[in-house]
Amino acid sequence: METDFDKALRQIAELMEQELTSFLPENEGLEKQLYKAMRYAVLSGGKRMRALLAIQSADLFSVPRLHSTRVAAAIEMIHSYSLIHDDLPCMDDDDLRRGVPTVHKKFDEATAVLAGDALQSLAFEILAHPDTHPSAEVRIALTAKLAHAIGVKGMVGGQIMDMYASADDIDVITITRLQQLKTGALIAFACEAGAVLGHASPPQAHALKAYAHDMGLAFQIADDILDREGTLEEMGKAVGKDGDAGKATFVSLMGLEEARVHASMLADQAVDHLDIFGPKADLLRDAAAFTIDRRK
Amino acid sequence: METDFDKALRQIAELMEQELTSFLPENEGLEKQLYKAMRYAVLSGGKRMRALLAIQSADLFSVPRLHSTRVAAAIEMIHSYSLIHDDLPCMDDDDLRRGVPTVHKKFDEATAVLAGDALQSLAFEILAHPDTHPSAEVRIALTAKLAHAIGVKGMVGGQIMDMYASADDIDVITITRLQQLKTGALIAFACEAGAVLGHASPPQAHALKAYAHDMGLAFQIADDILDREGTLEEMGKAVGKDGDAGKATFVSLMGLEEARVHASMLADQAVDHLDIFGPKADLLRDAAAFTIDRRK
Repeated sequence: METDFDKALRQIAELMEQELTSFLPENEGLEKQLYKAMRYAVLSGGKRMRALLAIQSADLFSVPRLHSTRVAAAIEMIHSYSLIHDDLPCMDDDDLRRGVPTVHKKFDEATAVLAGDALQSLAFEILAHPDTHPSAEVRIALTAKLAHAIGVKGMVGGQIMDMYASADDIDVITITRLQQLKTGALIAFACEAGAVLGHASPPQAHALKAYAHDMGLAFQIADDILDREGTLEEMGKAVGKDGDAGKATFVSLMGLEEARVHASMLADQAVDHLDIFGPKADLLRDAAAFTIDRRK
Repeated sequence: METDFDKALRQIAELMEQELTSFLPENEGLEKQLYKAMRYAVLSGGKRMRALLAIQSADLFSVPRLHSTRVAAAIEMIHSYSLIHDDLPCMDDDDLRRGVPTVHKKFDEATAVLAGDALQSLAFEILAHPDTHPSAEVRIALTAKLAHAIGVKGMVGGQIMDMYASADDIDVITITRLQQLKTGALIAFACEAGAVLGHASPPQAHALKAYAHDMGLAFQIADDILDREGTLEEMGKAVGKDGDAGKATFVSLMGLEEARVHASMLADQAVDHLDIFGPKADLLRDAAAFTIDRRK
Protein backbone atom coordinates (compact mmCIF):
# COMPACT_ATOMS: atom_id res chain seq x y z
CA MET A 1 0.00 0.00 0.00
CA GLU A 2 1.24 3.47 -0.83
CA THR A 3 1.91 5.48 2.34
CA ASP A 4 1.50 9.26 2.52
CA PHE A 5 5.25 9.55 2.24
CA ASP A 6 5.49 7.24 -0.79
CA LYS A 7 2.82 9.34 -2.42
CA ALA A 8 4.57 12.62 -1.62
CA LEU A 9 7.87 11.28 -2.94
CA ARG A 10 6.21 10.01 -6.12
CA GLN A 11 4.41 13.32 -6.68
CA ILE A 12 7.55 15.32 -6.11
CA ALA A 13 9.47 13.06 -8.49
CA GLU A 14 6.81 13.70 -11.16
CA LEU A 15 6.85 17.43 -10.46
CA MET A 16 10.63 17.45 -10.78
CA GLU A 17 10.59 15.66 -14.14
CA GLN A 18 8.29 18.40 -15.49
CA GLU A 19 10.19 21.25 -13.90
CA LEU A 20 13.63 20.00 -14.94
CA THR A 21 12.41 19.29 -18.47
CA SER A 22 11.17 22.87 -18.76
CA PHE A 23 14.72 24.17 -18.23
CA LEU A 24 16.30 21.81 -20.74
CA PRO A 25 14.62 22.25 -24.12
CA GLU A 26 14.99 19.90 -27.04
CA ASN A 27 17.26 21.83 -29.26
CA GLU A 28 18.58 21.61 -32.77
CA GLY A 29 21.55 23.98 -32.62
CA LEU A 30 25.18 22.97 -32.38
CA GLU A 31 24.77 22.93 -28.59
CA LYS A 32 22.12 20.19 -28.78
CA GLN A 33 24.66 17.56 -27.71
CA LEU A 34 25.03 19.45 -24.46
CA TYR A 35 21.31 19.77 -23.75
CA LYS A 36 20.92 16.10 -24.61
CA ALA A 37 23.54 15.08 -22.07
CA MET A 38 22.13 17.44 -19.42
CA ARG A 39 18.63 16.04 -19.94
CA TYR A 40 19.94 12.47 -19.88
CA ALA A 41 21.65 13.13 -16.56
CA VAL A 42 18.95 15.04 -14.72
CA LEU A 43 15.97 13.08 -16.02
CA SER A 44 17.33 9.59 -15.41
CA GLY A 45 15.27 9.05 -12.29
CA GLY A 46 16.81 9.33 -8.88
CA LYS A 47 14.87 9.43 -5.65
CA ARG A 48 14.60 13.26 -5.62
CA MET A 49 15.20 13.21 -1.88
CA ARG A 50 16.89 16.62 -2.00
CA ALA A 51 13.94 18.06 -3.89
CA LEU A 52 11.57 16.59 -1.34
CA LEU A 53 13.54 18.09 1.53
CA ALA A 54 13.55 21.53 -0.10
CA ILE A 55 9.87 21.46 -0.97
CA GLN A 56 8.70 20.00 2.35
CA SER A 57 10.85 22.45 4.31
CA ALA A 58 9.35 25.31 2.32
CA ASP A 59 5.85 23.86 2.80
CA LEU A 60 6.29 24.30 6.58
CA PHE A 61 6.10 28.04 5.93
CA SER A 62 3.44 27.85 3.21
CA VAL A 63 5.89 29.01 0.56
CA PRO A 64 4.21 28.87 -2.88
CA ARG A 65 5.23 25.66 -4.65
CA LEU A 66 6.01 27.84 -7.68
CA HIS A 67 9.04 29.08 -5.78
CA SER A 68 10.14 25.98 -3.91
CA THR A 69 9.92 23.81 -7.02
CA ARG A 70 12.41 26.04 -8.84
CA VAL A 71 14.82 25.90 -5.94
CA ALA A 72 14.38 22.12 -5.78
CA ALA A 73 15.17 21.92 -9.52
CA ALA A 74 18.35 23.95 -9.00
CA ILE A 75 19.39 21.58 -6.20
CA GLU A 76 18.71 18.48 -8.31
CA MET A 77 20.82 20.00 -11.10
CA ILE A 78 23.72 20.50 -8.72
CA HIS A 79 23.33 16.96 -7.43
CA SER A 80 23.28 15.71 -10.99
CA TYR A 81 26.38 17.72 -11.98
CA SER A 82 28.25 16.28 -8.99
CA LEU A 83 27.31 12.72 -9.99
CA ILE A 84 28.39 13.27 -13.61
CA HIS A 85 31.81 14.53 -12.54
CA ASP A 86 32.20 11.91 -9.75
CA ASP A 87 31.53 9.12 -12.26
CA LEU A 88 34.31 10.28 -14.65
CA PRO A 89 37.18 7.86 -15.33
CA CYS A 90 39.61 10.16 -13.50
CA MET A 91 37.37 10.12 -10.41
CA ASP A 92 35.34 7.05 -9.38
CA ASP A 93 35.31 5.61 -12.91
CA ASP A 94 31.76 4.30 -12.85
CA ASP A 95 30.04 2.89 -15.94
CA LEU A 96 26.54 2.56 -14.51
CA ARG A 97 24.30 4.93 -12.59
CA ARG A 98 20.65 4.18 -11.78
CA GLY A 99 20.86 1.15 -14.05
CA VAL A 100 21.91 3.03 -17.18
CA PRO A 101 25.30 4.05 -18.62
CA THR A 102 26.88 7.07 -16.95
CA VAL A 103 27.05 10.28 -19.00
CA HIS A 104 30.64 9.79 -20.19
CA LYS A 105 29.78 6.25 -21.31
CA LYS A 106 26.59 7.28 -23.08
CA PHE A 107 28.21 10.36 -24.65
CA ASP A 108 31.91 10.99 -24.03
CA GLU A 109 34.15 12.49 -21.38
CA ALA A 110 34.28 16.00 -22.84
CA THR A 111 30.51 16.15 -23.01
CA ALA A 112 30.28 14.85 -19.43
CA VAL A 113 32.64 17.52 -18.11
CA LEU A 114 30.79 20.28 -19.97
CA ALA A 115 27.30 19.01 -19.08
CA GLY A 116 28.30 19.11 -15.40
CA ASP A 117 29.76 22.59 -15.80
CA ALA A 118 26.63 23.86 -17.52
CA LEU A 119 24.33 22.32 -14.91
CA GLN A 120 26.20 24.18 -12.20
CA SER A 121 25.72 27.50 -14.01
CA LEU A 122 22.09 26.74 -14.79
CA ALA A 123 21.35 26.11 -11.11
CA PHE A 124 22.63 29.59 -10.27
CA GLU A 125 20.76 31.09 -13.20
CA ILE A 126 17.52 29.60 -11.86
CA LEU A 127 18.10 30.84 -8.31
CA ALA A 128 18.89 34.34 -9.57
CA HIS A 129 15.75 34.61 -11.69
CA PRO A 130 12.85 36.71 -10.31
CA ASP A 131 10.43 33.79 -10.81
CA THR A 132 12.22 32.00 -7.97
CA HIS A 133 11.25 34.70 -5.49
CA PRO A 134 10.18 38.32 -5.88
CA SER A 135 12.72 39.51 -3.32
CA ALA A 136 16.30 40.05 -4.50
CA GLU A 137 17.41 39.66 -0.87
CA VAL A 138 15.96 36.15 -0.74
CA ARG A 139 17.44 35.19 -4.11
CA ILE A 140 20.91 36.43 -3.25
CA ALA A 141 20.77 34.66 0.13
CA LEU A 142 19.95 31.40 -1.66
CA THR A 143 22.76 32.01 -4.15
CA ALA A 144 25.33 32.75 -1.45
CA LYS A 145 24.36 29.69 0.58
CA LEU A 146 24.32 27.34 -2.39
CA ALA A 147 27.70 28.60 -3.66
CA HIS A 148 29.19 28.01 -0.23
CA ALA A 149 27.56 24.59 0.19
CA ILE A 150 29.00 23.21 -3.04
CA GLY A 151 32.48 24.80 -3.01
CA VAL A 152 35.80 24.06 -1.33
CA LYS A 153 34.20 24.27 2.09
CA GLY A 154 31.35 22.05 1.02
CA MET A 155 30.64 19.43 -1.63
CA VAL A 156 33.77 19.75 -3.77
CA GLY A 157 36.01 20.00 -0.70
CA GLY A 158 34.47 16.76 0.57
CA GLN A 159 35.02 15.13 -2.79
CA ILE A 160 38.73 15.98 -2.86
CA MET A 161 39.12 14.69 0.72
CA ASP A 162 37.40 11.50 -0.36
CA MET A 163 39.79 11.12 -3.32
CA TYR A 164 43.01 11.77 -1.45
CA ALA A 165 42.52 10.73 2.15
CA SER A 166 44.33 7.46 2.65
CA ALA A 167 42.22 4.84 4.42
CA ASP A 168 44.79 4.66 7.23
CA ASP A 169 44.26 8.31 8.15
CA ILE A 170 40.53 8.06 8.37
CA ASP A 171 38.68 7.52 11.60
CA VAL A 172 35.00 8.01 12.36
CA ILE A 173 35.50 11.70 13.15
CA THR A 174 37.28 12.35 9.84
CA ILE A 175 34.80 10.44 7.70
CA THR A 176 31.96 12.25 9.46
CA ARG A 177 33.50 15.61 8.56
CA LEU A 178 34.24 14.43 5.02
CA GLN A 179 30.68 13.25 4.44
CA GLN A 180 29.20 16.35 6.03
CA LEU A 181 30.94 18.24 3.25
CA LYS A 182 30.57 15.80 0.38
CA THR A 183 26.90 14.94 0.73
CA GLY A 184 25.73 16.73 3.89
CA ALA A 185 26.26 20.30 2.71
CA LEU A 186 23.84 20.06 -0.23
CA ILE A 187 21.24 18.21 1.86
CA ALA A 188 21.57 20.91 4.50
CA PHE A 189 21.14 23.57 1.82
CA ALA A 190 17.91 21.92 0.66
CA CYS A 191 16.37 22.33 4.13
CA GLU A 192 17.95 25.74 4.65
CA ALA A 193 16.51 26.94 1.35
CA GLY A 194 13.04 26.20 2.67
CA ALA A 195 13.80 28.33 5.72
CA VAL A 196 15.12 31.20 3.58
CA LEU A 197 12.15 31.11 1.20
CA GLY A 198 9.81 31.01 4.19
CA HIS A 199 11.48 33.74 6.24
CA ALA A 200 11.84 31.25 9.10
CA SER A 201 12.45 32.57 12.61
CA PRO A 202 15.93 31.84 14.01
CA PRO A 203 14.72 28.90 16.16
CA GLN A 204 12.86 27.44 13.18
CA ALA A 205 15.90 27.85 10.91
CA HIS A 206 18.08 26.29 13.58
CA ALA A 207 15.73 23.32 14.01
CA LEU A 208 15.76 22.64 10.25
CA LYS A 209 19.52 22.95 10.14
CA ALA A 210 19.93 20.44 12.96
CA TYR A 211 17.45 18.10 11.25
CA ALA A 212 19.34 18.37 7.96
CA HIS A 213 22.65 17.73 9.66
CA ASP A 214 21.49 14.46 11.22
CA MET A 215 19.57 13.45 8.08
CA GLY A 216 22.62 13.98 5.87
CA LEU A 217 24.76 11.72 8.00
CA ALA A 218 22.07 9.07 8.40
CA PHE A 219 21.64 9.14 4.61
CA GLN A 220 25.33 8.57 4.00
CA ILE A 221 25.66 5.78 6.53
CA ALA A 222 22.63 4.09 4.96
CA ASP A 223 24.38 4.47 1.57
CA ASP A 224 27.48 2.76 2.90
CA ILE A 225 25.32 -0.06 4.30
CA LEU A 226 23.55 -0.44 0.95
CA ASP A 227 26.89 -0.40 -0.86
CA ARG A 228 27.85 -3.39 1.27
CA GLU A 229 24.52 -5.20 1.25
CA GLY A 230 22.74 -4.15 -1.93
CA THR A 231 22.99 -5.84 -5.30
CA LEU A 232 23.76 -4.21 -8.63
CA GLU A 233 20.16 -4.87 -9.65
CA GLU A 234 18.70 -3.06 -6.65
CA MET A 235 21.17 -0.20 -6.71
CA GLY A 236 21.51 0.31 -10.47
CA LYS A 237 25.23 0.85 -10.05
CA ALA A 238 28.32 -1.10 -9.11
CA VAL A 239 28.33 -2.03 -5.42
CA GLY A 240 31.07 -2.90 -2.95
CA LYS A 241 33.63 -0.79 -4.85
CA ASP A 242 34.63 1.27 -1.83
CA GLY A 243 35.26 -1.78 0.30
CA ASP A 244 37.13 -3.55 -2.49
CA ALA A 245 39.32 -0.47 -3.02
CA GLY A 246 40.23 -0.51 0.67
CA LYS A 247 38.42 2.79 1.05
CA ALA A 248 37.18 3.75 4.49
CA THR A 249 33.39 3.85 4.88
CA PHE A 250 31.17 4.07 7.94
CA VAL A 251 30.68 0.32 7.64
CA SER A 252 34.40 -0.48 7.40
CA LEU A 253 35.11 1.76 10.39
CA MET A 254 32.17 0.86 12.65
CA GLY A 255 31.09 -2.57 11.47
CA LEU A 256 27.71 -3.27 9.92
CA GLU A 257 25.76 -3.58 13.16
CA GLU A 258 27.08 -0.43 14.79
CA ALA A 259 26.61 1.51 11.56
CA ARG A 260 22.98 0.44 11.49
CA VAL A 261 22.44 1.48 15.11
CA HIS A 262 24.19 4.81 14.50
CA ALA A 263 22.10 5.61 11.43
CA SER A 264 18.94 4.75 13.30
CA MET A 265 19.95 6.96 16.22
CA LEU A 266 20.69 9.86 13.88
CA ALA A 267 17.33 9.47 12.15
CA ASP A 268 15.56 9.55 15.54
CA GLN A 269 17.56 12.60 16.52
CA ALA A 270 16.68 14.29 13.22
CA VAL A 271 12.99 13.71 13.94
CA ASP A 272 13.32 15.16 17.45
CA HIS A 273 14.52 18.47 16.02
CA LEU A 274 11.21 18.88 14.22
CA ASP A 275 9.09 19.13 17.39
CA ILE A 276 8.55 22.88 17.06
CA PHE A 277 6.77 22.39 13.74
CA GLY A 278 4.11 19.99 15.05
CA PRO A 279 2.23 17.68 12.66
CA LYS A 280 3.05 19.93 9.63
CA ALA A 281 6.47 18.29 9.60
CA ASP A 282 5.22 14.71 9.35
CA LEU A 283 6.54 14.16 5.84
CA LEU A 284 9.99 15.35 6.92
CA ARG A 285 9.75 12.87 9.81
CA ASP A 286 8.84 10.11 7.36
CA ALA A 287 11.77 11.16 5.19
CA ALA A 288 14.13 10.41 8.07
CA ALA A 289 12.69 6.92 8.45
CA PHE A 290 12.76 6.38 4.68
CA THR A 291 16.40 7.39 4.52
CA ILE A 292 17.54 4.49 6.65
CA ASP A 293 14.98 1.91 5.47
CA ARG A 294 15.32 2.35 1.70
CA ARG A 295 16.65 -0.44 -0.50
CA LYS A 296 18.44 1.85 -2.95
CA MET B 1 58.67 53.19 -22.45
CA GLU B 2 55.64 52.20 -20.41
CA THR B 3 52.45 53.71 -21.83
CA ASP B 4 49.47 54.66 -19.68
CA PHE B 5 47.79 51.49 -20.85
CA ASP B 6 50.80 49.28 -20.04
CA LYS B 7 50.86 50.82 -16.60
CA ALA B 8 47.12 50.29 -16.05
CA LEU B 9 47.38 46.68 -17.18
CA ARG B 10 50.38 46.07 -14.92
CA GLN B 11 48.67 47.67 -11.93
CA ILE B 12 45.50 45.70 -12.49
CA ALA B 13 47.50 42.50 -12.81
CA GLU B 14 49.15 43.26 -9.45
CA LEU B 15 45.82 44.12 -7.87
CA MET B 16 44.37 40.86 -9.16
CA GLU B 17 47.19 38.75 -7.73
CA GLN B 18 46.46 40.24 -4.30
CA GLU B 19 42.72 39.98 -4.60
CA LEU B 20 42.73 36.43 -5.95
CA THR B 21 45.23 35.33 -3.30
CA SER B 22 42.96 36.67 -0.58
CA PHE B 23 40.21 34.27 -1.66
CA LEU B 24 42.49 31.23 -1.82
CA PRO B 25 44.19 30.76 1.54
CA GLU B 26 47.14 28.48 2.17
CA ASN B 27 45.50 25.65 3.98
CA GLU B 28 46.55 22.57 5.85
CA GLY B 29 43.33 20.53 5.87
CA LEU B 30 42.56 17.58 3.65
CA GLU B 31 41.24 20.04 1.08
CA LYS B 32 44.65 21.73 0.74
CA GLN B 33 45.30 19.90 -2.55
CA LEU B 34 42.29 21.69 -3.99
CA TYR B 35 43.28 25.16 -2.80
CA LYS B 36 46.79 24.50 -4.10
CA ALA B 37 45.50 23.65 -7.56
CA MET B 38 43.10 26.61 -7.58
CA ARG B 39 45.90 29.00 -6.58
CA TYR B 40 48.23 27.46 -9.15
CA ALA B 41 45.66 28.03 -11.87
CA VAL B 42 44.47 31.53 -11.05
CA LEU B 43 47.84 32.97 -9.99
CA SER B 44 49.86 31.72 -12.95
CA GLY B 45 49.88 35.08 -14.67
CA GLY B 46 47.64 35.78 -17.58
CA LYS B 47 47.06 39.18 -19.09
CA ARG B 48 44.07 39.94 -16.85
CA MET B 49 42.34 41.55 -19.82
CA ARG B 50 38.89 40.58 -18.50
CA ALA B 51 39.71 42.11 -15.12
CA LEU B 52 40.87 45.28 -16.84
CA LEU B 53 37.67 45.50 -18.85
CA ALA B 54 35.51 45.05 -15.75
CA ILE B 55 37.46 47.56 -13.68
CA GLN B 56 37.79 50.16 -16.43
CA SER B 57 34.12 49.85 -17.33
CA ALA B 58 33.20 50.36 -13.67
CA ASP B 59 35.65 53.27 -13.43
CA LEU B 60 33.59 55.10 -16.08
CA PHE B 61 30.87 55.40 -13.43
CA SER B 62 33.23 56.01 -10.50
CA VAL B 63 32.35 52.67 -8.92
CA PRO B 64 34.54 52.09 -5.85
CA ARG B 65 37.45 49.83 -6.77
CA LEU B 66 36.58 47.78 -3.69
CA HIS B 67 33.53 46.56 -5.58
CA SER B 68 34.85 46.28 -9.13
CA THR B 69 37.98 44.42 -8.01
CA ARG B 70 35.86 41.68 -6.45
CA VAL B 71 33.80 41.32 -9.60
CA ALA B 72 37.00 41.25 -11.65
CA ALA B 73 38.33 38.48 -9.40
CA ALA B 74 35.16 36.45 -9.91
CA ILE B 75 35.53 36.86 -13.69
CA GLU B 76 39.19 35.80 -13.64
CA MET B 77 38.20 32.73 -11.61
CA ILE B 78 35.62 31.76 -14.22
CA HIS B 79 38.15 32.33 -17.00
CA SER B 80 40.64 30.19 -15.11
CA TYR B 81 38.10 27.39 -14.51
CA SER B 82 37.29 27.34 -18.22
CA LEU B 83 40.98 27.05 -19.14
CA ILE B 84 41.55 24.21 -16.64
CA HIS B 85 38.67 22.21 -18.10
CA ASP B 86 39.53 23.10 -21.72
CA ASP B 87 43.08 21.84 -21.22
CA LEU B 88 41.95 18.39 -19.96
CA PRO B 89 43.01 15.34 -21.99
CA CYS B 90 39.38 14.71 -22.99
CA MET B 91 39.10 18.26 -24.34
CA ASP B 92 42.02 20.09 -25.98
CA ASP B 93 44.62 17.92 -24.23
CA ASP B 94 47.16 20.67 -23.59
CA ASP B 95 50.26 20.15 -21.46
CA LEU B 96 51.40 23.74 -21.26
CA ARG B 97 49.64 26.97 -20.41
CA ARG B 98 51.44 30.30 -19.92
CA GLY B 99 54.73 28.44 -20.09
CA VAL B 100 54.03 26.07 -17.21
CA PRO B 101 52.37 22.65 -16.96
CA THR B 102 48.58 22.71 -17.11
CA VAL B 103 46.71 21.85 -13.90
CA HIS B 104 46.10 18.21 -14.77
CA LYS B 105 49.80 17.77 -15.60
CA LYS B 106 51.01 19.53 -12.45
CA PHE B 107 48.45 17.74 -10.24
CA ASP B 108 46.16 15.16 -11.82
CA GLU B 109 42.92 15.05 -13.80
CA ALA B 110 40.60 14.59 -10.84
CA THR B 111 42.12 17.60 -9.11
CA ALA B 112 41.83 19.62 -12.31
CA VAL B 113 38.14 18.80 -12.72
CA LEU B 114 37.41 19.64 -9.08
CA ALA B 115 39.53 22.81 -9.03
CA GLY B 116 37.56 24.09 -12.02
CA ASP B 117 34.28 23.14 -10.38
CA ALA B 118 35.23 24.90 -7.15
CA LEU B 119 36.38 28.04 -8.97
CA GLN B 120 33.01 28.30 -10.64
CA SER B 121 31.22 28.12 -7.27
CA LEU B 122 33.66 30.53 -5.68
CA ALA B 123 33.00 33.12 -8.38
CA PHE B 124 29.29 33.03 -7.55
CA GLU B 125 30.03 33.10 -3.83
CA ILE B 126 32.05 36.28 -4.34
CA LEU B 127 29.37 37.99 -6.43
CA ALA B 128 26.69 37.12 -3.87
CA HIS B 129 28.64 38.52 -0.91
CA PRO B 130 27.57 41.95 0.44
CA ASP B 131 31.16 43.23 0.13
CA THR B 132 30.72 43.13 -3.65
CA HIS B 133 27.93 45.68 -3.53
CA PRO B 134 25.58 46.84 -0.77
CA SER B 135 22.52 46.37 -2.98
CA ALA B 136 21.07 42.86 -3.25
CA GLU B 137 19.46 43.95 -6.54
CA VAL B 138 22.87 44.72 -8.03
CA ARG B 139 24.40 41.49 -6.75
CA ILE B 140 21.60 39.32 -8.07
CA ALA B 141 21.73 41.10 -11.44
CA LEU B 142 25.45 40.30 -11.65
CA THR B 143 24.80 36.69 -10.65
CA ALA B 144 22.05 36.22 -13.22
CA LYS B 145 24.12 37.73 -16.01
CA LEU B 146 27.25 35.77 -15.17
CA ALA B 147 25.34 32.49 -14.91
CA HIS B 148 23.80 33.12 -18.31
CA ALA B 149 27.10 34.20 -19.89
CA ILE B 150 28.93 31.02 -18.92
CA GLY B 151 26.18 28.43 -19.45
CA VAL B 152 24.72 26.55 -22.41
CA LYS B 153 23.84 29.82 -24.12
CA GLY B 154 27.27 31.24 -23.47
CA MET B 155 30.77 29.96 -22.73
CA VAL B 156 30.07 26.25 -22.27
CA GLY B 157 27.69 26.20 -25.24
CA GLY B 158 30.47 27.73 -27.35
CA GLN B 159 32.92 25.15 -26.08
CA ILE B 160 30.72 22.21 -27.05
CA MET B 161 30.15 23.75 -30.50
CA ASP B 162 33.91 24.09 -30.83
CA MET B 163 34.43 20.43 -29.89
CA TYR B 164 31.79 18.96 -32.16
CA ALA B 165 31.38 21.23 -35.13
CA SER B 166 33.10 19.59 -38.06
CA ALA B 167 35.39 21.95 -39.96
CA ASP B 168 33.35 21.41 -43.12
CA ASP B 169 30.22 22.86 -41.55
CA ILE B 170 31.88 26.00 -40.32
CA ASP B 171 31.81 29.25 -42.20
CA VAL B 172 32.61 32.73 -40.98
CA ILE B 173 29.09 33.26 -39.67
CA THR B 174 29.15 30.04 -37.66
CA ILE B 175 32.59 30.61 -36.19
CA THR B 176 31.58 34.15 -35.28
CA ARG B 177 28.58 32.85 -33.38
CA LEU B 178 30.66 30.10 -31.80
CA GLN B 179 33.31 32.50 -30.59
CA GLN B 180 30.78 35.03 -29.40
CA LEU B 181 29.63 32.30 -27.04
CA LYS B 182 32.93 30.66 -26.19
CA THR B 183 35.02 33.73 -25.44
CA GLY B 184 32.77 36.70 -26.23
CA ALA B 185 30.12 36.09 -23.60
CA LEU B 186 32.51 36.38 -20.64
CA ILE B 187 34.24 39.42 -22.14
CA ALA B 188 30.84 41.02 -22.65
CA PHE B 189 29.93 40.22 -19.06
CA ALA B 190 33.08 41.97 -17.84
CA CYS B 191 31.99 45.22 -19.48
CA GLU B 192 28.35 44.72 -18.57
CA ALA B 193 29.30 44.18 -14.93
CA GLY B 194 30.82 47.65 -14.90
CA ALA B 195 27.54 49.05 -16.21
CA VAL B 196 25.50 47.15 -13.60
CA LEU B 197 27.77 48.21 -10.73
CA GLY B 198 27.63 51.80 -11.98
CA HIS B 199 23.86 51.97 -12.60
CA ALA B 200 24.59 52.95 -16.21
CA SER B 201 21.85 54.61 -18.25
CA PRO B 202 20.42 52.45 -21.06
CA PRO B 203 22.47 54.25 -23.79
CA GLN B 204 25.63 53.88 -21.71
CA ALA B 205 24.96 50.19 -21.07
CA HIS B 206 24.24 49.71 -24.74
CA ALA B 207 27.47 51.44 -25.77
CA LEU B 208 29.52 49.22 -23.46
CA LYS B 209 27.76 46.13 -24.73
CA ALA B 210 28.50 47.04 -28.34
CA TYR B 211 32.12 47.79 -27.43
CA ALA B 212 32.45 44.43 -25.66
CA HIS B 213 30.91 42.60 -28.58
CA ASP B 214 33.42 43.96 -31.07
CA MET B 215 36.31 43.63 -28.62
CA GLY B 216 35.51 39.99 -27.94
CA LEU B 217 35.60 39.11 -31.62
CA ALA B 218 38.72 41.17 -32.31
CA PHE B 219 40.36 39.40 -29.37
CA GLN B 220 39.53 35.97 -30.73
CA ILE B 221 40.66 36.74 -34.27
CA ALA B 222 43.92 38.09 -32.84
CA ASP B 223 44.24 34.82 -30.89
CA ASP B 224 43.82 32.81 -34.07
CA ILE B 225 46.46 34.96 -35.80
CA LEU B 226 48.85 34.46 -32.87
CA ASP B 227 48.16 30.74 -32.90
CA ARG B 228 49.32 30.74 -36.50
CA GLU B 229 52.20 33.18 -36.15
CA GLY B 230 53.36 32.99 -32.54
CA THR B 231 56.00 30.64 -31.17
CA LEU B 232 55.68 28.37 -28.16
CA GLU B 233 58.14 30.66 -26.34
CA GLU B 234 56.07 33.78 -26.91
CA MET B 235 52.73 32.13 -26.24
CA GLY B 236 53.71 29.80 -23.41
CA LYS B 237 51.52 27.10 -24.89
CA ALA B 238 51.46 24.82 -27.91
CA VAL B 239 50.72 26.77 -31.10
CA GLY B 240 49.29 25.81 -34.44
CA LYS B 241 47.29 22.95 -32.96
CA ASP B 242 43.97 24.11 -34.37
CA GLY B 243 45.33 24.38 -37.89
CA ASP B 244 47.12 21.03 -37.62
CA ALA B 245 43.93 19.38 -36.40
CA GLY B 246 42.10 20.70 -39.45
CA LYS B 247 40.00 22.85 -37.14
CA ALA B 248 38.34 25.93 -38.57
CA THR B 249 39.68 29.25 -37.28
CA PHE B 250 39.18 32.81 -38.46
CA VAL B 251 42.58 32.52 -40.15
CA SER B 252 41.78 29.26 -41.94
CA LEU B 253 38.45 30.67 -43.11
CA MET B 254 39.51 34.20 -44.07
CA GLY B 255 43.22 33.93 -44.68
CA LEU B 256 45.82 35.75 -42.61
CA GLU B 257 45.55 39.11 -44.33
CA GLU B 258 41.80 39.38 -44.28
CA ALA B 259 41.71 38.19 -40.65
CA ARG B 260 44.10 40.98 -39.74
CA VAL B 261 42.02 43.59 -41.55
CA HIS B 262 38.84 42.27 -39.98
CA ALA B 263 40.29 42.36 -36.44
CA SER B 264 41.54 45.88 -37.00
CA MET B 265 38.15 47.00 -38.29
CA LEU B 266 36.42 45.47 -35.25
CA ALA B 267 38.84 47.19 -32.88
CA ASP B 268 38.12 50.55 -34.57
CA GLN B 269 34.43 49.89 -34.37
CA ALA B 270 34.74 48.99 -30.68
CA VAL B 271 36.44 52.32 -30.03
CA ASP B 272 33.71 54.23 -31.89
CA HIS B 273 31.10 52.90 -29.49
CA LEU B 274 32.87 54.64 -26.61
CA ASP B 275 32.27 58.17 -27.90
CA ILE B 276 29.57 58.96 -25.35
CA PHE B 277 32.05 58.48 -22.49
CA GLY B 278 34.58 61.05 -23.71
CA PRO B 279 38.21 60.90 -22.53
CA LYS B 280 37.27 58.86 -19.42
CA ALA B 281 37.18 55.83 -21.70
CA ASP B 282 40.74 56.22 -23.04
CA LEU B 283 42.04 53.09 -21.34
CA LEU B 284 39.21 51.05 -22.86
CA ARG B 285 40.17 52.55 -26.24
CA ASP B 286 43.78 51.51 -25.65
CA ALA B 287 42.57 48.04 -24.67
CA ALA B 288 41.03 47.63 -28.12
CA ALA B 289 44.34 48.55 -29.78
CA PHE B 290 46.27 46.29 -27.42
CA THR B 291 44.00 43.38 -28.18
CA ILE B 292 45.02 43.25 -31.81
CA ASP B 293 48.67 44.29 -31.36
CA ARG B 294 49.68 41.95 -28.53
CA ARG B 295 52.29 39.25 -29.03
CA LYS B 296 50.66 36.72 -26.68
